Amino acid sequence: MTTGSSHPTPEKFFDMAFAFERTAAIKTAVDLDLFSAIASGADTTAAIAKQCSASERGVRILCDFLTINGLLTKTGDRYQVTADSRAFLTKSSPMYLGGTLHFLTSPAVIGNFDKLTATVRAGTVAPEGNFVAGTEQDLWVNFAKAMVPMMMPAALGIADALKIKSAGRVRVLDIAAGHGIFGVVLAQQNAQAEIVAVDWAGVLSVATDNARKAGVGDRHRALPGDAFKVDYGTGYDIALLTNFLHHYDTPTCVALLRRVYAALNPGGRAVILEFVPNDDRVSPPIPAGFSMMMLASTPAGDAYTFAELQSMAREAGFKSVTSHALPTPETVVIAVK
Amino acid sequence: MTTGSSHPTPEKFFDMAFAFERTAAIKTAVDLDLFSAIASGADTTAAIAKQCSASERGVRILCDFLTINGLLTKTGDRYQVTADSRAFLTKSSPMYLGGTLHFLTSPAVIGNFDKLTATVRAGTVAPEGNFVAGTEQDLWVNFAKAMVPMMMPAALGIADALKIKSAGRVRVLDIAAGHGIFGVVLAQQNAQAEIVAVDWAGVLSVATDNARKAGVGDRHRALPGDAFKVDYGTGYDIALLTNFLHHYDTPTCVALLRRVYAALNPGGRAVILEFVPNDDRVSPPIPAGFSMMMLASTPAGDAYTFAELQSMAREAGFKSVTSHALPTPETVVIAVK
Repeated sequence: MTTGSSHPTPEKFFDMAFAFERTAAIKTAVDLDLFSAIASGADTTAAIAKQCSASERGVRILCDFLTINGLLTKTGDRYQVTADSRAFLTKSSPMYLGGTLHFLTSPAVIGNFDKLTATVRAGTVAPEGNFVAGTEQDLWVNFAKAMVPMMMPAALGIADALKIKSAGRVRVLDIAAGHGIFGVVLAQQNAQAEIVAVDWAGVLSVATDNARKAGVGDRHRALPGDAFKVDYGTGYDIALLTNFLHHYDTPTCVALLRRVYAALNPGGRAVILEFVPNDDRVSPPIPAGFSMMMLASTPAGDAYTFAELQSMAREAGFKSVTSHALPTPETVVIAVK
Repeated sequence: MTTGSSHPTPEKFFDMAFAFERTAAIKTAVDLDLFSAIASGADTTAAIAKQCSASERGVRILCDFLTINGLLTKTGDRYQVTADSRAFLTKSSPMYLGGTLHFLTSPAVIGNFDKLTATVRAGTVAPEGNFVAGTEQDLWVNFAKAMVPMMMPAALGIADALKIKSAGRVRVLDIAAGHGIFGVVLAQQNAQAEIVAVDWAGVLSVATDNARKAGVGDRHRALPGDAFKVDYGTGYDIALLTNFLHHYDTPTCVALLRRVYAALNPGGRAVILEFVPNDDRVSPPIPAGFSMMMLASTPAGDAYTFAELQSMAREAGFKSVTSHALPTPETVVIAVK
């Protein structure tokens, strides 16, 4: 960081201005399956170019750029994947995230950032950019399909935090289930778990499909409808609210948590998965920075701090509210009725 | 950096995937003149929102995002500009770079990155994205106007490297002059300097205008035409090749340097301003990363190392070739005939 006494440098200006190049570079590397090629042993520009059906000039400059940005290492003229790139960017890895890029950087997502100045002025996204309009949208079907690999580590973390394997018979309400993977993992780890998944009908078909593929289709029921309006019923032991609250303002979150509270058995647990920044709202970088995505694409969403989530849950009636770290940038918050 | 033994984390994946948000954030901050507002004393969300005619939600999230990215600092609920932001992003600063963003992130520039995969495959930009087609282009007129503040520190650095104030009577050939500011600064610092500026006629009018405004119009002559074809004449003491060679492949650069060599007097100096990476081509980050822009937007351009520039200059006949650091990410290379 520059201090007041040193000569000012435009490094950070350049870094921000040209940041768009990085998004393009990782998309292109994934399009070419370049990380898989390097991980499989192609380590020179010529070998990588051959395996990726690309040009040597293009591959050299792209690999150098990825090295500068920490996704590859370079020794002499030879490139290697980093441990992170091997885990998340080679296709044979179970943690492969390359497929999520199509959604994360889709024209609908990036288009909202072309209008960011107007959004900051207005304080809310224009209607046509609103990702959380109350209608079924193809966007969320694509999202549901894209996000499974990215969300699997969190799904496993939630199962651990709930000690689901030893939880006995449990009824689980999976709200805004999307891909459904959070409920599916609980059902896989506990043969006595029954899942009721709520989402718009179009999106829910993705969850139903994933449940069937995972072999838990007989304990996975679809409850189509708007999460704010559909009758959940009662008698649930666990309610999953994964990556959902951040789309809404505090009163809306509290209203939803009240509905969840009413649906839970005494002692039942609401499981909130969120990007949770520290109270300073500027750390850690990924959870704190997530609020920018909510500014650009929702009317009033945010990345809420633990204190804010705790306050919402208590206002809705919950007693104990605790936080659980995950091996991902997100946090699990569990509120007990 | 992740090592092989630690748990892999998706931080760098997220950093790259969402990098486009940073470009949008700095553009919006500049659009709102947010840094000037904070530098002038508005340091709370409410005060900044009022001064920028924006919403508090938008300003809070934007300021937090700029803090995460090192362009602001935050203490409690109050924001401050950094020394770098004060220098480069407040409008009253002579080093203000905000105006360059319109060109640096114009649709023409970013559009080439939407086609990066095809470019890496082909090894060369598609004709419609080619920034260096041999015709006059509005793009370069805009570029010439935008780049003056960004280039002024380099122009002053070149004047120092040439010891221009004590150089006596000099004739200067300013090739692909653009805004003309490199030649103009030499003329300002040395009343015996005469500048001949070469560029396409449309672009050259910007240089002529800047020379007149700087009070050196009587010693600044326009020589319109293609830098590869126009007759430079002879008898020059200095030839400026600023931010030009990176658009071309090595044989083209050598051919141009031969033309420059022929136009110079014995002992004359060719001054090459470039992003010059180290021999590893992956450091320092900004000069090394510049090759990505050349991949995306030129048929065969690159960020050349000092060894490569030295080799080109020698092949064109130059004797001594030396490197001079600047207070910017670029380097001055001086080749003596």
